[in-house]
Amino acid sequence: MKKNSPSGANALVIKDLNTRLVRQALKNARVSTVRDLAGMTGLSTVTVAGIVQALVAGGAAREGELVPSNGGRPSRLYRFDEQQASVLVLFTREIEGRDTACLRVADLYGQIVASENHPLEAGSLEAFEPFIDRMLVRFPSISALGFGLPGIEYGGTIVALDYHKLVGAPIIDHFQSRYGIPVVFENDVNAAVLGRGRQEGAATSEAYLYFPRKYPPGSGIRIEGRLLKGSRHFAGEVGFLPLGIAWGDPNLTESIEASSSAAAQVIVSLAAVLDPESVVLFGEFLTPTHLAEIRIRCRSLMPEESLPQISLTEDFTQDFQDGLVGLTLELLDL
Amino acid sequence: MKKNSPSGANALVIKDLNTRLVRQALKNARVSTVRDLAGMTGLSTVTVAGIVQALVAGGAAREGELVPSNGGRPSRLYRFDEQQASVLVLFTREIEGRDTACLRVADLYGQIVASENHPLEAGSLEAFEPFIDRMLVRFPSISALGFGLPGIEYGGTIVALDYHKLVGAPIIDHFQSRYGIPVVFENDVNAAVLGRGRQEGAATSEAYLYFPRKYPPGSGIRIEGRLLKGSRHFAGEVGFLPLGIAWGDPNLTESIEASSSAAAQVIVSLAAVLDPESVVLFGEFLTPTHLAEIRIRCRSLMPEESLPQISLTEDFTQDFQDGLVGLTLELLDL
Repeated sequence: MKKNSPSGANALVIKDLNTRLVRQALKNARVSTVRDLAGMTGLSTVTVAGIVQALVAGGAAREGELVPSNGGRPSRLYRFDEQQASVLVLFTREIEGRDTACLRVADLYGQIVASENHPLEAGSLEAFEPFIDRMLVRFPSISALGFGLPGIEYGGTIVALDYHKLVGAPIIDHFQSRYGIPVVFENDVNAAVLGRGRQEGAATSEAYLYFPRKYPPGSGIRIEGRLLKGSRHFAGEVGFLPLGIAWGDPNLTESIEASSSAAAQVIVSLAAVLDPESVVLFGEFLTPTHLAEIRIRCRSLMPEESLPQISLTEDFTQDFQDGLVGLTLELLDL
Repeated sequence: MKKNSPSGANALVIKDLNTRLVRQALKNARVSTVRDLAGMTGLSTVTVAGIVQALVAGGAAREGELVPSNGGRPSRLYRFDEQQASVLVLFTREIEGRDTACLRVADLYGQIVASENHPLEAGSLEAFEPFIDRMLVRFPSISALGFGLPGIEYGGTIVALDYHKLVGAPIIDHFQSRYGIPVVFENDVNAAVLGRGRQEGAATSEAYLYFPRKYPPGSGIRIEGRLLKGSRHFAGEVGFLPLGIAWGDPNLTESIEASSSAAAQVIVSLAAVLDPESVVLFGEFLTPTHLAEIRIRCRSLMPEESLPQISLTEDFTQDFQDGLVGLTLELLDL
């Protein structure tokens, strides 16, 4: 045994690795047999059978019915239990002119199993608590919490936020202490660019540009699946590009020429620094006519072969929500 | 054995992992005993002794003298052989107004063991061959080749280069086929920012900005130790930022105000997109007076707490060479 057993990278690590492998394979397959899981993972059926028993005992998988196998004894089906744990995400939107807290509970496949919207006075962290408390009672399986707010968190504290009263609030610690579960914070554009990255055929690198009517634009940047957050979580604050553009001026969004020129300058700036495969734009005022104009103006500023794909997205909230759910699920290590 | 031996993550992988661990520990220590290597790696002395024997047999380590150990039998010293393999890097510089090919041979610690400069007519890939051929005869241990040229390689081919005749040349394939060793290409600013990253206390993220007198600036970007190259290796081409600056105009570099303003706008653009911890500047005309002026102008464009550290570097060639040697050593997987 001395020679064949791993001494440095030890047996416990291997066992943990194999458990993850089997759990992931069962999660992907949703329903499977020990034999099929062995085929997918390259592990022996003896090893897989032991791991599956442990997953069932721990609640991660459920036993299903027996199915015929080729000539041999019938095989037991095992089913991944996607509701063994869930996550709660909370983000804010303006709905009919009112600040609104949007709560979503998602299972381990990221499917939304509950959804609530509540008018919000975001004057303190405590303002969020009644909504969260009620969801935790409804869904005791909630095991992680994700906040999506339009601002910047650094070192666990909100350092910039559209709801000024929350600047300086220790959001991560506050909710981790209160609920005893892991908490993540991400802003809207960063979560949205991650959400786009979870789609089939996503670009390997992408910038998500959000143009509000009344404020400077912001961007979220994803490179090889990971957010580029910057050394003080300030990356993507493209409103500070020294382009001399009067962001927030109503004349800007009212003119197709002016707004397209402004957007093109931001896109070319992102392309010159990052060379992303894709840039996605969102702004309530943006239309396909703007997009065509933006593309023309970009080509006048940079060789076409160095420009990213440029497109409009229609559902910012969906991208934002998908990204936030994904980030919060990552906390679970399942 | 069935239960204790790793079946999924198999024994060969573990053995390879342990070999790397021991080799790396011996490389870091330069000289060590089996007992000390076991302490450093967490492996058993039996495992380490076997690996060290294999390293000696393969030429990666040499046996040294016996040293007394605490009361027990004397222990054998083993020495990492940093000259078991070496790398050749070739980069170009203008020296006394002439294009010059600089060749350096480095050992596994990155120390330069040979250095040659030759006037160069960079009209074809073949123009480099006589210099390389001679170095390979002098140092048969050369096991990888690194090119540092002021341009962009994509998919193994030069797609942009100051030596226009080489644009379109399949540089990687050409030299890999000719010499049968791995080849890497990197441009000057990208290699330089990697070189800075190898220094003690390096910033976790950094942009290296090079301002030539006659051309637009270029930058190399390092984030958490890795180059940001972009989807078409075009990242950092900050000359395309739509800032309306007349790059290459002699009036620009002659005026401290004009050149400092231009540099500040590029730095703030990098900060707004990337939020790097540090931005390092190089330009033959840049002085501490420029640096002070640049800092003032940056603070007028962006909140000070969001600005990176800004500094001048004096030895661009050294940074460039260090980075290129590091990149070429990575090809060896030693």
